[in-house]
Parts: sequence; C-alpha cells; structure tokens
Amino acid sequence: MSERLIVIGGCAAGMSAASKARRMNPDLDIVVYEKTGFVSYGECGLPYYVSGLVDDYNKLIVRTPEQFAERGIEVHLHYEVSEIEAKNRRVRVTNLDDGESWYENYDKLVITTGGRPALLPGFSLGDLSGVFVMRAVEDGIAIREFIQRERPRCAVIVGAGYIGLETAESFHVLGLETTVIGRPPQVLKLFDPDVAKLVQEKLERKGIGLSLDDEVKALESDAQARVRRVISSKGTFEADLVLLALGVRPNVALAKEAGVALGETGAIATDTQMRTNLPDVFAAGDCAEAYHRLTGRGAYIPLGTTANKQGRVAGTNAGGGHAEFSGVVGTAITKVFDLYAALTGLAEKEARALGYAVKPTTIKASSRAHYYPGGGPMHVKLVVEEGSGRLLGGQIVGGEGAGPRIDVLATALHKEMTVEELSRLDLAYVPPMAPVWDPLLVAANVALK
Amino acid sequence: MSERLIVIGGCAAGMSAASKARRMNPDLDIVVYEKTGFVSYGECGLPYYVSGLVDDYNKLIVRTPEQFAERGIEVHLHYEVSEIEAKNRRVRVTNLDDGESWYENYDKLVITTGGRPALLPGFSLGDLSGVFVMRAVEDGIAIREFIQRERPRCAVIVGAGYIGLETAESFHVLGLETTVIGRPPQVLKLFDPDVAKLVQEKLERKGIGLSLDDEVKALESDAQARVRRVISSKGTFEADLVLLALGVRPNVALAKEAGVALGETGAIATDTQMRTNLPDVFAAGDCAEAYHRLTGRGAYIPLGTTANKQGRVAGTNAGGGHAEFSGVVGTAITKVFDLYAALTGLAEKEARALGYAVKPTTIKASSRAHYYPGGGPMHVKLVVEEGSGRLLGGQIVGGEGAGPRIDVLATALHKEMTVEELSRLDLAYVPPMAPVWDPLLVAANVALK
Repeated sequence: MSERLIVIGGCAAGMSAASKARRMNPDLDIVVYEKTGFVSYGECGLPYYVSGLVDDYNKLIVRTPEQFAERGIEVHLHYEVSEIEAKNRRVRVTNLDDGESWYENYDKLVITTGGRPALLPGFSLGDLSGVFVMRAVEDGIAIREFIQRERPRCAVIVGAGYIGLETAESFHVLGLETTVIGRPPQVLKLFDPDVAKLVQEKLERKGIGLSLDDEVKALESDAQARVRRVISSKGTFEADLVLLALGVRPNVALAKEAGVALGETGAIATDTQMRTNLPDVFAAGDCAEAYHRLTGRGAYIPLGTTANKQGRVAGTNAGGGHAEFSGVVGTAITKVFDLYAALTGLAEKEARALGYAVKPTTIKASSRAHYYPGGGPMHVKLVVEEGSGRLLGGQIVGGEGAGPRIDVLATALHKEMTVEELSRLDLAYVPPMAPVWDPLLVAANVALK
Repeated sequence: MSERLIVIGGCAAGMSAASKARRMNPDLDIVVYEKTGFVSYGECGLPYYVSGLVDDYNKLIVRTPEQFAERGIEVHLHYEVSEIEAKNRRVRVTNLDDGESWYENYDKLVITTGGRPALLPGFSLGDLSGVFVMRAVEDGIAIREFIQRERPRCAVIVGAGYIGLETAESFHVLGLETTVIGRPPQVLKLFDPDVAKLVQEKLERKGIGLSLDDEVKALESDAQARVRRVISSKGTFEADLVLLALGVRPNVALAKEAGVALGETGAIATDTQMRTNLPDVFAAGDCAEAYHRLTGRGAYIPLGTTANKQGRVAGTNAGGGHAEFSGVVGTAITKVFDLYAALTGLAEKEARALGYAVKPTTIKASSRAHYYPGGGPMHVKLVVEEGSGRLLGGQIVGGEGAGPRIDVLATALHKEMTVEELSRLDLAYVPPMAPVWDPLLVAANVALK
C-alpha cells in the first residue's frame, strides 16, 4: 500500500507542498483538506478584486481542485481538520457541509493552517453587518457584494499595514470616502517613520483620511445591526463599511493542541527542512516561523513568497527528497496608488533595537535620466553597520523600479555585502530606466562619505 | 605653487575625475581640455534628442563649463591635446578656434579621450552629406537639423548595436522608413541569438527593415554629393539619411604615441587605481580597458556607467586619495520601443568560447501576477556552469522591470553566487510588480532541475 501525505490547508504553502511532493514521489497518496471553498489562489490579489481591477474572482485562482485531481492530488473543500493525533498518525476530519467527522491516517503530515486576521478585542465577526476582514476569497466576494448592494458612502479601515493601505486605495477608487485608523504613529509599522511618511503624504494627497497613533474603542451600529460609526480615542468616524486589517496571527491552535512546538513568535517552530518537533509532521507558510538571516532567529513575517518557498521545501522532504529553506531577509513591498514602498533587512529602528550601531543614509534620486520624460523621485534609505560597513537593510519608495531594486539589496543582504561593495556594483543603465548613477549607487556612495 | 591636474577630454570619465579630484584636494589646479563644444553631457540621450522626446539638447548637459568654474575646475572647449610628453610632464595644447598651440605642464594627467565611432573602410565622414555618426552632442544636433531641413523619407542604419537600434526607433518615431543593416546574423551581437531574436521580432513588428548577416559595400550619392542609396551584399536600400553605428573604438592614438601601454583589446591598460604604465598618468572611460570579473582580463566595454566609476577612481587617486576600480561584470541594457533587453556576465556563446561547460536555461514568465492587468512577457535566460552550478551570466528581455532585475543577477555575479543560492533569494512580491514567483526565481528553479 502506498504512503499517504495529508496536507492541512490549501493555500500557497499547502498546494506548493502537495505539488512538490507529487513530483518527488508519483506513488504517494496526497490528500488536501481545506476549510474554505477555494485552494491555490492569489490572496494578495483580493484588494484588486474588491476595486474591480480584477473583474472575476476566478482569475485569482491558479489551479482548481479538478486540475489538482488530474495531477493525482485529492482536494477536499469545506473540510476541517479538528485534531492531530500524532501518536497514532491520524487526523480527525470534519465535513463542514454535513458535520460528519472521522479519522484519517497519514504517513506524512504537512500543516499549512495559515494565518487568521487579528480582530478587535471583544469583537466577533458577524456581530455587525458591514464589518469585514480580508483573507479568504469569500471575504473579497462578501466585500464586493456588500458594496454593490449597500452602496456605502464612507469606509473606515482599521489598520495601516499592507492590506489596510492597499484596500484603502481600492475603496477610494470605488468612490468611498475612506479613513485609515492606525495604532502606531505611522503607517507600515515595519518601515522607519521617515520612509513611511512618504507613503502617508501620498495617501493624504489622494484624500484618504489618516488617524494615526489612534485606537478604536467601539463600533456603533444602527437598529438593524449595521455598522454606522467607528469610535476611536481621537474621534468619531462615519462608517458604512469597516475593514479590520489588524494584521495576521498564526493559526496554531490545532498544532499546539497536538503537541507541535511553537517558537518565540507564537508561530510553529521548524528546522530548515520545515520539520516540526513531531515525527513526519511538517509546517509551512503563515502558520510557521521563518528563519531570519539577519537576526539569526525565527521571525513571523507571513507572506506569500515565503509560504510558497517553505511549502516546496516541506513537500520535497515529505515526498522523500531533501530540501532546505534558507531563510528570509525580511523583504516586503506594497503599492499604494502609484507609489511602491519596499523594504528588506533591518529597518533603522529595528537594527538599533537589536543593538547595532548603525549609520542610516537616505537619498532622493530620479528614477530616470534627468532629461528623459516621465521620471519620478526614488527615495532610497540604507541602513549600514558602523565600523564594518555591512549593509543591514534598505527601504525604497518610488515608482515601478522600486521593487526590483529592493531585490538588489535583498541579494546583497543574502551575501552579507558591505556598502562599499554595493557602491561598486556594475548595474545597468539606459536613460528611461535610471540615471547613469543608479539610485542604489548614489545611496551607497553617500553612505560611504 | 599648487599642483596641477590636467584632464584630457570632458565627457563622463573626464568630468567625474575632475570633480572627484577637486573634492579630494581643494588646492589642486584642475584644467580640462575638450575638443568639442560640450562637456558633461548624457551621450546616451542623443537618440532621444534626435526623436524629439528630449526637445532641447541643453537638457542633456549635466553641468556647464561655468558651473565647473564655480567649483574651481577650469574647462577649455575646442582645445585639443595633440601630444603628451611624459618625460617632461607636459602636454601640447592646440586652440582649435585659432590654431595656436603651446605646452602646459602637469603634475598629474588623466587621459579620458573616449571612443570614436568606427567607420566604413575607405570612407570619411564629410565625403557625403546625409551620412552621420552619433557620438558628440554636435552629431545629434546635425542629425536633427538635417531631418528638419531635408525631410528625408528613408533612413539606413549601418550597425545593429545599442545606438543603431535606439536610433532606429527614433527615426521610426519621426516617420522615416528605416532599415538596419548588420554584419552579424543577429542584432545586439553580445546577446545570445535566441535572446536577440526577441528584439528582432519587435523591430519587425514595428516595421523596421532588418538586413542581417549583410555587409555594406558602398554608399551611392547624387550629383550634389548627397547620399541616396546603400549598396550591400544583399541588395540596394534607398537612403536619404545614413547613420553609421558600427560601434566604438578606443581613442588611443595620442596615448600610444606617448608610450602609454595598451592592453590586448587595444584600449589603454591600467591597474585597479586607473594608473597607466607612465608615472602620474591615469586613464579612464571609453579609451581604457575595464577589468572583467568573470574573465579575469581586461575588457573593452565602453559604457557611461563604467566611465563614471573609473573617472571617480582616477580622480580620487590623482587628487591624492586612494580608490580602486573593482571591475565590471559586463552589464548592459538597451530599450527598443517598449522592450528592454539587458545582459550581464557571460552570454552562453561567450562562456562556451571561454571553455566553460554551461547549462543554459530560458524561461518566459509574466511581469505581473497573472490576474493583474497590464502585464507582459518577461524572458529570462540564465547561463550556469555545469557541475559547480555557478551563475555565469543572464539575459532578460521584457518591460520596465527587466533592467533592475538584471541588476539582481549582476549583484549575484559580483558575489559569485550559484543558481541554487539564486533560487533561494527573498525577493519582493506585490501583484503589480511580479508574480509570486519572480521570473528570476522561476528561471533559477528551472535551471536547478
């Protein structure tokens, strides 16, 4: 009888693991249980589905259960795994449609239970209508349907992170008067405040309300339990629609219950092969930690890129091969209107908090040769260790070139480059793409002074 | 009395050297002699001045002689240095306006005589009207004036390199029927043929004529010595305007005469401090070789990026400081219509010619998440050494993201990364910028198979 791999959760990490395990071992039985109605979708595309830029949610889906079935991967939607019995190598599965529940045996298990959106304390989703999170395809569908049906006039987004700001743009595009309430005194809290300020200015220029250093106290509703107002420390905001974008917490209750060890961050701890402490049990994606190459510790940075890479590693090892996940350097990017804000490595404040003596350098350059039309400003901040000159991190805010440029810095971080080495890179130049001194080189040269 | 630095030539390398030397040593006398009427200009912008995208050639100029004078750098336009007498540390200077000539002493000398456009054998510029090269600002002005005055209907460009193709676009934009004649069987001869083909297809779709694997035999003129036809091995092409874009040769006659040693490439050989074999004589830019980090030898790759870097190094050392040029990895990029074609490191054919056993991998990915509108294809070719898995080079053809992505590969080459390391990079992702697996990671993963 062939071995059986069970995968819990069918988003990026889970389906990557299943696909990779299939390629490693054609004989493996592979079964995926997914709570929602969708697997293998581009979660990061949800704000664009809400705005209508992506007209059909089916476009977000990379592969359907039928397509996975053709590859010999059995996908069950609306099935929840409610218990892992590691001792007996079995999981308890519940069919959410009829409530039936039973045990299924596994030889290998991959936990990709993902993350869950953080909520306001004391608040449950469903308490009020018009209050949403953005995580599953169903969430995007519900928000879009609500907007089409209820024609809300004003929206409040609680949380000024990636999802919060990207959805603020979507709401604005749809003509909603939009306010973002954030607890930290800046948007995008992983960025340094001076960099985040550039994004704040863009939001303000676009007419998005910002109430930072603020905290939501209550959501007020009308007699039909429809949300109407958000009460915060700083004021009262009209709201026919509220999005809670308070960040993601690792979904680990199931794993913890089963004895899977968690790391300091509260997410599942794994080794470089994505193995947990339990035999033949792997974890990957937003429920798991990622080794951070700069801090040398497990980090919780739930992103699709990492989920995909970790899923492949887990799937390779679960399928009998050998692969290792070599960690992250903390690269992330968001787009707010025409501005990309990207970071990698340690922010200045993070580096200082870790005890580094750092020298930050921020420059403003042009994205194109000065004479070539259509250029815009590109802001580059480098965080460099004093003395050694080692690059610790970078942040870039600018147009389309910001993203791949942060990748240059991410590559430099992977190889522990100094800012002097950075300044010597043989980078490409053609007037529509960059000035002859690329903004990265300008920043490195200034940092060297 | 203060020391004197003489700089021969005032383009990128020369003015970088002068500026850097000034910052190193406020007491230095710095004198620049420039043959043409312009210093410190964006030569790479000339095709865009010809097309009218840049409306005024003054916009190409970064700093005027007056602005350099304010920094204590004396710039003489229309002055030619006709002799270097290294033994007596002096140069013979000729004022081209009045023909007067005399000696000037130097303590340090920086040779940045640049490159000169290659010509057809047996042909001199000026023999026929309507025949141009593109090198100095004056060339751009002459071409634009010619087009406005003579209203040519059809143009032939001889040479299918960067300048040839960029100017083909300019001519096409201006409504000229344009044909490019090239000797190699492909455009962009440094690229591999399979990659160059993508650019050829773009040119053909735009209606640019291509006659490759072809050789110009003669230029025919009318009774007024105006060019009318180009005769090649493959046919006869009507031409009211001809651009010779046959590449650049190092301008080394002056240096050679003075006993400056040349490298194998025929350009000036220097050490890492940009010193020539003669005491206190430096060279930088398009007249000099650049150390190629992948071949370990001097290369002749005349580009503005390298000229600027070498100029700074020469200027630092001439000014009494210490700097080293750490070489190139062969990065270059061009834009042809909306297509960027970029390369770094060794092309497959070049790597094979150098004796490497290579494994090439070419992938076609999307520049954006599949559901995000406006994406286009991005082709990535990786050249990997068999066995070691070391990355030897990369080529990318695609939209705006191609350029900074080649920079990621250039960074990887600087640090001698393997393709496995490349596949593990923590690169940025947001749907408008890339698919969740960046095209670079897709290519690396395919190369690993």
